Amino acid sequence: MKIGILGTGSVGRTLAARLAELGHDVVIGTRDVAATEAKTEQPFPAPLRTAPEAAAHAELVINATGGQVSVAALQGAGAENLAGKVLIDISNPLDFSQGFPPRLAVCNDDSIGEQIQRAFPDALVVKTLNTVTADVMAHPAKVGDGDHTVFVSGNDPDAKGTVSQLLREFGWRDIVDVGDITTARGVEMMLPLWVRLMGAIGTQQFNYKLVR
Amino acid sequence: MKIGILGTGSVGRTLAARLAELGHDVVIGTRDVAATEAKTEQPFPAPLRTAPEAAAHAELVINATGGQVSVAALQGAGAENLAGKVLIDISNPLDFSQGFPPRLAVCNDDSIGEQIQRAFPDALVVKTLNTVTADVMAHPAKVGDGDHTVFVSGNDPDAKGTVSQLLREFGWRDIVDVGDITTARGVEMMLPLWVRLMGAIGTQQFNYKLVR
Repeated sequence: MKIGILGTGSVGRTLAARLAELGHDVVIGTRDVAATEAKTEQPFPAPLRTAPEAAAHAELVINATGGQVSVAALQGAGAENLAGKVLIDISNPLDFSQGFPPRLAVCNDDSIGEQIQRAFPDALVVKTLNTVTADVMAHPAKVGDGDHTVFVSGNDPDAKGTVSQLLREFGWRDIVDVGDITTARGVEMMLPLWVRLMGAIGTQQFNYKLVR
Repeated sequence: MKIGILGTGSVGRTLAARLAELGHDVVIGTRDVAATEAKTEQPFPAPLRTAPEAAAHAELVINATGGQVSVAALQGAGAENLAGKVLIDISNPLDFSQGFPPRLAVCNDDSIGEQIQRAFPDALVVKTLNTVTADVMAHPAKVGDGDHTVFVSGNDPDAKGTVSQLLREFGWRDIVDVGDITTARGVEMMLPLWVRLMGAIGTQQFNYKLVR
């Protein structure tokens, strides 16, 4: 599948490497290709393009930018390049501006997932993977032999089906459809406990298994 | 152990029955004993007392009132009856006043657990059990043979130790100390996903196992 990833941080790089390894045609979008290349020491696992080029290339777009800049980054990619496409949103509204622990810049009555769906009504937004660290997103088997859970939230059942298939390629086996895009509030609000648990148990390599 | 439970809803009743079954000396505190008895069809699993009587009786107090009325209910029990005692807080700030899904009346920068600790600085507040339904709190083995996780948050290590021992009596095996009482924010913010998951999977009998 032709996939455009927006975001050049650890989430974007890790998913790009994994998707390329799985045989997908991946490009990474960034605001300024030359500037991103200039400040980066390690080679990128997929070709760098401008954000509009990456989104236009893609059948499926992944938002791996920070939650607080996601809508702006996607506007930079161009609404016309997102229309009718599945848009996976992995972002979290973590705000470290007041120190540790971070607060959420958006929560309770709204979420980044909903903000993106409202800003791009023709995109098929699916919130997922935001509840684990990048390495676990791409390689769920690295924690507990993959016996744990990932959530999907979104308004379009077919889009959630497409995303679930991609998650299964990564190795996810327990994929729980929580509901429409308003359920992104709940999965984004998992982050405050995630951050404190990381400190308490001393690792980012963890996740929850939904036991029922 | 002498235990006073504040709150006559399903959480208070379920925990009172379980603690009495385990041999503890339990009383249930309510604002108006006669009024509570008058509006209740089923017998209570432990003697009803006024809130101050229940707290004064207790070596350990359990707050099983709603999050939005918890500080007032505990003030009704009397700060002098809570001083120096372990105070388990199970409440959640669920606010259904604007319909479903509920919002949280407090979150992000504060929590009910912290509000209680600030209002009663001489009590040893431990937040726990708020992430599961009442039946699972008292009988964790009813879900997945008990192979799932409960969190404890609080400032006093000995108080968390006392509470962990009580949790083990209930059948909890994986008890994770998340940190000080500010970590109550994270466990209270688990509720929005809990509420939506309940709808998605059609049961309240579930929990998370922390896989690491």
